[in-house]
Amino acid sequence: MKSALITIGDELLGGYTIDSNAAWIGRKLMDIGIRTVWKLTVPDQKDDIVNAMSLAAEKADVVICTGGLGPTRDDITRDAYCEFTGAELEMDKQYLDELSARFERRGVTMPESNRSQGLVPDRGSVIPNPKGSARGMFCSVDGRWICILPGVPAEMKGMMEESVLPELGDMSTSDLFVTNIRTTGVMESKLHDLLDDAMNGSPVSIAFLPGFSGVDIRLTSEDESVVAELSRGVYKLAGKYIYAEDWVTLEESVGECLREKGVTLAVAESCTGGLLGDRITNVAGSSDYFLGGVVCYSDEAKINLVGVKRETLDSFGAVSEAGVAGPDGGTEEKPVGLTCFGLDDGANPFSRSVTFYRDRRFNKELSAQTALNSVRLRITGQI
Amino acid sequence: MKSALITIGDELLGGYTIDSNAAWIGRKLMDIGIRTVWKLTVPDQKDDIVNAMSLAAEKADVVICTGGLGPTRDDITRDAYCEFTGAELEMDKQYLDELSARFERRGVTMPESNRSQGLVPDRGSVIPNPKGSARGMFCSVDGRWICILPGVPAEMKGMMEESVLPELGDMSTSDLFVTNIRTTGVMESKLHDLLDDAMNGSPVSIAFLPGFSGVDIRLTSEDESVVAELSRGVYKLAGKYIYAEDWVTLEESVGECLREKGVTLAVAESCTGGLLGDRITNVAGSSDYFLGGVVCYSDEAKINLVGVKRETLDSFGAVSEAGVAGPDGGTEEKPVGLTCFGLDDGANPFSRSVTFYRDRRFNKELSAQTALNSVRLRITGQI
Repeated sequence: MKSALITIGDELLGGYTIDSNAAWIGRKLMDIGIRTVWKLTVPDQKDDIVNAMSLAAEKADVVICTGGLGPTRDDITRDAYCEFTGAELEMDKQYLDELSARFERRGVTMPESNRSQGLVPDRGSVIPNPKGSARGMFCSVDGRWICILPGVPAEMKGMMEESVLPELGDMSTSDLFVTNIRTTGVMESKLHDLLDDAMNGSPVSIAFLPGFSGVDIRLTSEDESVVAELSRGVYKLAGKYIYAEDWVTLEESVGECLREKGVTLAVAESCTGGLLGDRITNVAGSSDYFLGGVVCYSDEAKINLVGVKRETLDSFGAVSEAGVAGPDGGTEEKPVGLTCFGLDDGANPFSRSVTFYRDRRFNKELSAQTALNSVRLRITGQI
Repeated sequence: MKSALITIGDELLGGYTIDSNAAWIGRKLMDIGIRTVWKLTVPDQKDDIVNAMSLAAEKADVVICTGGLGPTRDDITRDAYCEFTGAELEMDKQYLDELSARFERRGVTMPESNRSQGLVPDRGSVIPNPKGSARGMFCSVDGRWICILPGVPAEMKGMMEESVLPELGDMSTSDLFVTNIRTTGVMESKLHDLLDDAMNGSPVSIAFLPGFSGVDIRLTSEDESVVAELSRGVYKLAGKYIYAEDWVTLEESVGECLREKGVTLAVAESCTGGLLGDRITNVAGSSDYFLGGVVCYSDEAKINLVGVKRETLDSFGAVSEAGVAGPDGGTEEKPVGLTCFGLDDGANPFSRSVTFYRDRRFNKELSAQTALNSVRLRITGQI
């Protein structure tokens, strides 16, 4: 089964909002064997949305639309859905009462503009929204399954998990075996060359998926054994770069290692400004192994919070400890992007300097990634 | 002038990578008066890309494609571009030598798979890539301007800034006046109701653009004076929620306030885990006013790093200081998402508790946003 996604909203086209919903939906669908082959973003205009629904229904069996279900005047996804499916709207008085009561429980009078969220179509089904006021809808049209969901991520996710994915799981008949192998610390082209021998002659479909700070290798086939065989080859040729499989993040993988070994972690950051701690604490349960950290952005913080000596800073400069994130402040010897890492497990301290040649944000991301990866490599005995 | 964006890659459809490029391009185009009306994401398949180019060229004057220009086997955007534009490829030996030399300067032998990046089309122009090996291309086809760019964000951005935007700026003849007013701390529907009087009867086109942690209000018209008039109305009715205009972020706005007042900032975080410091240090030059911070994730860190008394933790629990980010650990009195904020400027300490009803990540985002906004409100004398 194939899916097409339609995300709706001027805010997505104008770049006010990054379309993270579509990525999340794409992953969840792949987990139940539904491949997303098309993704379209259109303005909050009824004609554009109806047009997009028609195009998407030509490309895929399942069409999922998000956005444009809020109460404001530019939210017309529901009208487009009715035009495309031929449904008529009627007022669901019971839901309107519930909605009004829900606002009251939070001590707020329901804004007038929320009334329209009580409207429901006379065909297909309503998708309940446990976390918000905008409900979704789904139905089948000419053998294509289509649904509309709100664009607020937490609401959309709740509705996907509780209603849409179970519904689609029953419909899906996929026999594809997929293994997603996640690497970091290696360029896509080098990885490609490393794996060339293993890939040649393998009947497995292989995709290199470069992400923000690593490359995923996705192996797909209808034959489980050939996927397993190629997977072994990938581990043999590129094992030291592999940190996880499937959708496991580096911070989750590191957290799992720490928990297994009964080791706790504390961090001292400079140029990453807190990003390292932020990533570590994105994992539920990270308080089991993460004690905390300090962000030493100024010389004073370096001296007072982690005990760097004033003389060290005077002799070597903060860059020997901290890196310069950019865009200003680099020198020929110590360019913007030079980042120093240190790791102390009480037994065998490790330090290393790397220069990243990206913009400020990317340098921060790569620095945090490298630091996290160092923890992984140390715990697993690879450095 | 209207634009359509095509982003190419299985990694975008499968959700491995969030499509942040398209958002960035959408914003940059709007700055030169080009409105993005369509965005399409397709797989690394030549036919799909050519098909997308045809559809996009029907919708817009300018078509910008990103992704699929790397050296690996699934990168076939260049072939699709040639098919769509009718161009033929030839090898640019001079560039190949340059590329090879660039790899050598970094102490790396050029991987064989990079050779294909020397190929150039025999019509249109090449777009130089100062930050990477994959060059872009552009040309006009039947009155439509089309270009292809790599998907690596830093490379794409450099090429847009240095080549594509200047080229398009010369072509654009927009007379639209746009004001983007950024708010935080207010729901979209409430903002809508607040502004109803000002909006009714105004000839200005108004869009509410809800983002991750705030709502932008975009006012557009060909008449500068009506935009200015409505803008004044928005400030009058919703001024306390407004933190900036255009693309200025809350952390930039707060940084500017701190710099103006000559005030420095330090932070103590718990449930946000470092996210607050991360956001503050995303601003170039933030070391002028940001001293650093501590992340007190454990009770010990709360005691040792910020001097919370053990008795306080025993009597009130860490939640009275720290919040519970979720998904576990909440109680009836102290639900998941309960977050406590404190601000001390040496004169008039301020504290406040808020409960966020989202998932772990969203609660972190909203907490960091609320903390930053508190700094803004205090410096501007609003709390």
